[in-house]
Amino acid sequence: MANKPLVSIVSAGLSKFGRNEGMMCREIFAEATKESFDRCPNLDPIKDIEALFVGHMGESYEHQGHTGPTLADWTGLLPKPAIRIESACASSGSALRIGILAILSGLHKVVMVGGVEKMTHRTTAEVTEFLAMASDMPFEQWNGITFPGLYALMATAHMHKYGTTEEQMAQVAVKNHYNGTLNPKAHMQKEITLEKAMTSKVVAWPLKLYDCSLITDGASCLILAHPDIAKKFTDAPVHIIGSGQASDTIGLYERETLTSLKAAKLAGQEAYKMASVEPKDLDVAEVHDCFTIAEIIAYEDLGFCASGKGGNLIQEGTTELGGKLPVNPSGGLKSKGHPVGATGTAQAYEIYLQLTGQAEKRQVNGAEIGLSHNVGGSGATANVHIYRRD
Amino acid sequence: MANKPLVSIVSAGLSKFGRNEGMMCREIFAEATKESFDRCPNLDPIKDIEALFVGHMGESYEHQGHTGPTLADWTGLLPKPAIRIESACASSGSALRIGILAILSGLHKVVMVGGVEKMTHRTTAEVTEFLAMASDMPFEQWNGITFPGLYALMATAHMHKYGTTEEQMAQVAVKNHYNGTLNPKAHMQKEITLEKAMTSKVVAWPLKLYDCSLITDGASCLILAHPDIAKKFTDAPVHIIGSGQASDTIGLYERETLTSLKAAKLAGQEAYKMASVEPKDLDVAEVHDCFTIAEIIAYEDLGFCASGKGGNLIQEGTTELGGKLPVNPSGGLKSKGHPVGATGTAQAYEIYLQLTGQAEKRQVNGAEIGLSHNVGGSGATANVHIYRRD
Repeated sequence: MANKPLVSIVSAGLSKFGRNEGMMCREIFAEATKESFDRCPNLDPIKDIEALFVGHMGESYEHQGHTGPTLADWTGLLPKPAIRIESACASSGSALRIGILAILSGLHKVVMVGGVEKMTHRTTAEVTEFLAMASDMPFEQWNGITFPGLYALMATAHMHKYGTTEEQMAQVAVKNHYNGTLNPKAHMQKEITLEKAMTSKVVAWPLKLYDCSLITDGASCLILAHPDIAKKFTDAPVHIIGSGQASDTIGLYERETLTSLKAAKLAGQEAYKMASVEPKDLDVAEVHDCFTIAEIIAYEDLGFCASGKGGNLIQEGTTELGGKLPVNPSGGLKSKGHPVGATGTAQAYEIYLQLTGQAEKRQVNGAEIGLSHNVGGSGATANVHIYRRD
Repeated sequence: MANKPLVSIVSAGLSKFGRNEGMMCREIFAEATKESFDRCPNLDPIKDIEALFVGHMGESYEHQGHTGPTLADWTGLLPKPAIRIESACASSGSALRIGILAILSGLHKVVMVGGVEKMTHRTTAEVTEFLAMASDMPFEQWNGITFPGLYALMATAHMHKYGTTEEQMAQVAVKNHYNGTLNPKAHMQKEITLEKAMTSKVVAWPLKLYDCSLITDGASCLILAHPDIAKKFTDAPVHIIGSGQASDTIGLYERETLTSLKAAKLAGQEAYKMASVEPKDLDVAEVHDCFTIAEIIAYEDLGFCASGKGGNLIQEGTTELGGKLPVNPSGGLKSKGHPVGATGTAQAYEIYLQLTGQAEKRQVNGAEIGLSHNVGGSGATANVHIYRRD
């Protein structure tokens, strides 16, 4: 099992997730990149990094597009090519995918990929409106539905078809909030009880406040190198051995089913095949829990369990820290936070820490193979990456 | 001279540029892709095209982000990976660059790259505001400067340093408007006189109405294939033999000079070196004439003439159709129009037509080597591509 590397992660960085008052995206991104540079003293960023691909979802938050060169400037990477990648909440997962293409192309030996979003200076109504741009304008936004509503439709369909319960969804929140208490960079480091989650305010039934991820500021980055030169920069690279990406209709109303994300299933299949890895080989995973139902559906789409059995998987404790396959040890989007453009490479950052034994209180002992799963919108984009320690 | 291909263009498409009332981006893009499919009957889009990379500058125009899968859906390309690329007005030039990486990576054999923008349903004030997001928010937008103002600063600096005149800038407009009359897809197919250009309303002195490119709806696309399989799809591929991209500060105020775009110079040098081509080898070029001064600066940055001699080059007729190096035979952004996200691959489309002898009334006879030059914002992004006929 486990194929040869596509690329190697030689360093990674993450800003503190939360409310970064008075900082702009460029400054938050610089915080993440500084960690990646500090971690990797053998790398000379200006000399070695040849290109930047950066996920950024919304130019509306800061009235600032053209994010690539802006971030390259604040990170000291000018005049290298620097390009913004947008796939809604999967923007930096897509940036990672493109970084892999860049290394495989032979045109680049070392590139930086990452993502950033600054959201908390906007009102919840503004954020809801900006996020809605990732759904279909004429048929979804126009009719007033927003993301909690779209995921509520998936949740009720899943409850109806498979008997999934509100308690099972709340258990995802309880697990991820507990994990967040072990992550000093998480936005919300606060345990919650099942009762607290179950009695929280309804946002879009059956989804309640604690079923929803957070509005967060944050940035993340990875430094990718050709596997042949990775050891020049670090003794402990993490290798990416599988990458899958697929698309689906932007509108939920056009989908074949509401209880599964076809794009995520296809992306997973592509990544597993490329990596020669099966779900049973995984030691740790970070999945896109923008809403608790999304984590349950992810278990099924990624083959952690059979279709319809995601509720049981959380109930049985399989995906807790200490369980057979810990999922979202970082706290996930639910508790670590969801600065949308930064999420994909923030998931990869967590897997990097886990596979190099640097995850401290939330370390999954002996983790060798990991997976990240990043979803855009209600599932029109999904990408999956599989990682192996050196 | 002229190195081996990086990738081959096996087909290309362009929507009518202009005012497309009642159409959304997805429909305009489908119009461009339909032409590319019709041109290439040996290609089965659903089977053969493996990914889509699409330049799109502004989600504000249609309140629609997540453009990749939206366009993939309307083009029949689901469930293939589909990613939006944003580099301001160089978005689809960057998408082309990423398409090249994708083919070189070995992960993909055939991909579509393209771009789209729908602008004319918005007021000029709205468009000006949305475009401004490609400049620096805290130091440029905040102080009220917009793109005509930024390029006016470059123009006055060029006039002061080199003696470039308003008449020389107006001559760029006269040339490109004439070329537009020969292009049935151009937005404005109307000749203008030097006097008309010189006496048009001042937008930001010294730039007058006819020094500015157009607010346009439009889309463009290319189908790229690995050179080894290009002949499966067409007898007359066009090969891309050089690709260069570089970045500069987002803000004009931070630049080393106002009379040259450093990113464009570097991108050009990279592309020429990769292609083993020199400026004297070029038969035709499409350059980023968002304002007339930008075309004059492009001549210098790309080595068509020495620094400061761009005004002379237009005055001497060198870059007219029939001249030694025709520039913007399509009419350029000035007369063909500038649907920002679509411009980079629209330039490549024109070079594709020219090198395959399909440019009809504006054909540059015997053109073998071409170049495209795409600039984002006031020059924070630039990419240059060099093409050779089969």
